[in-house]
Amino acid sequence: MTEFDPGYGQEPYASLVAGCPGPEVNPAADFRVEWGPIFHRGRLDGTARLLVLGQDPAAHEAIARRILIGTAGRRIQGFLAKLGITHSYTMINTFVYSVYGQTGGNRHAHDPAIGAYRHRWLDALTATNPIDAVVALGTLADKAFHHWRATPTGSQYSGAYQHILHPTYPDSSTAADGDPTAAMAAMLANWNAALDVLHPAITHPDLVTPLVHYGDDLTPGDLATIPERDLPAGLPAWMRADEAWASRQGTSPVERRATIVVTIPTDLRPF
Amino acid sequence: MTEFDPGYGQEPYASLVAGCPGPEVNPAADFRVEWGPIFHRGRLDGTARLLVLGQDPAAHEAIARRILIGTAGRRIQGFLAKLGITHSYTMINTFVYSVYGQTGGNRHAHDPAIGAYRHRWLDALTATNPIDAVVALGTLADKAFHHWRATPTGSQYSGAYQHILHPTYPDSSTAADGDPTAAMAAMLANWNAALDVLHPAITHPDLVTPLVHYGDDLTPGDLATIPERDLPAGLPAWMRADEAWASRQGTSPVERRATIVVTIPTDLRPF
Repeated sequence: MTEFDPGYGQEPYASLVAGCPGPEVNPAADFRVEWGPIFHRGRLDGTARLLVLGQDPAAHEAIARRILIGTAGRRIQGFLAKLGITHSYTMINTFVYSVYGQTGGNRHAHDPAIGAYRHRWLDALTATNPIDAVVALGTLADKAFHHWRATPTGSQYSGAYQHILHPTYPDSSTAADGDPTAAMAAMLANWNAALDVLHPAITHPDLVTPLVHYGDDLTPGDLATIPERDLPAGLPAWMRADEAWASRQGTSPVERRATIVVTIPTDLRPF
Repeated sequence: MTEFDPGYGQEPYASLVAGCPGPEVNPAADFRVEWGPIFHRGRLDGTARLLVLGQDPAAHEAIARRILIGTAGRRIQGFLAKLGITHSYTMINTFVYSVYGQTGGNRHAHDPAIGAYRHRWLDALTATNPIDAVVALGTLADKAFHHWRATPTGSQYSGAYQHILHPTYPDSSTAADGDPTAAMAAMLANWNAALDVLHPAITHPDLVTPLVHYGDDLTPGDLATIPERDLPAGLPAWMRADEAWASRQGTSPVERRATIVVTIPTDLRPF
């Protein structure tokens, strides 16, 4: 038997998905609206104890239609495992559409209409799940959380909150003056500090586990596989693999924007 | 508000999807198991009046995760429209995995284990929907229907049945001695004969409409758009477009098998 994410057939998510704003709210100059909105990953059945607020989806997510399944996803999955959270989580992004360009995200960080839709999701998730903690990935997600905290419903949230460096921070060319080793160590120190706050805040972990900090670099054991139950029905296992399988390609910016090449990793082909 | 297919969260479909057999039943030599099973398109909520039995999914379907959305899908959608069926239909395929190679389908036409899984779907669909008619697309689907008819549950089906030429028959190089014009005319004559039987058999069409036969060639009015409500949440509208947007590419058969390139049609880009 395989497991799969049953999706958005139930309320309040059916109406949330049906009412997702399009380019009238998320302009095509700053968002890849052409690939459609990508809403979440994880539990929508009222069992989530931890809520991850990410930034925006990328190429892999545009194909698998769930967020945080690539490099960032496997890193944050490992972060959750250190808290004993193996399935009682849910994840949404600050933006349901992929951000286009370097400045698109910052330009819309305080956008009221985008925020209003995001607040509907945060309201629904916190109203229907016993959320012990919210973890924001990166500064845009942190801003989004604080915007929501300033709303009447957001102000009622009484769980823990931690803003951590985005899981792809070490891959950014500007992090730690371009020193990837130092950037990784900085991120993991930042994550360790967040774990110290979050570990006692998770009152009902899926697996009671002592807190083990990260070292200076990520080890294979610090990553976790995206669970089968997190992807839609029928998606092959290699879409949850450690290797990249989707990339934007093209000979011009326009063609790159219009194209995603899906290639099954060589060692995961059954032929 | 947008519409979307809520998917497989409800029984009996949740268990059917979870229990889909893999390569142990569908060998990788004959099926593209690496792209995962693709189950259906249309209603799973008990409202289907017409059941389409297709053959197997292709590249577009592997990305959109619903069957019959490409050329064949738009042609059969137009066929349903001539019967006044605009939403009360459901479609499954003979094979849940794409057939690999010229002979893979025929080799497994009488496969008991593959048939047993298909019969579970046919049983579920006919038990929970008021099916007035079944339409099989092509000879493999026709064989599949008759296999099911020979089962205890299949023998109880009392609605109409028509086997029609597969909607991509005119595109086959061997049809009508390679004359595409003659092949199209032959297919449409075959479809007209089926419409004569099916039109009176549909007791509750979505739209009461007089039967208008096809001419010798397909007109734009003979095609119908794949409805928004047939695709999963968030998929962009161009995935239901008249233009092709997915293709298998690569410099070798192995690379072609491992690769699908998704390209948004030029005139459907919002950028």
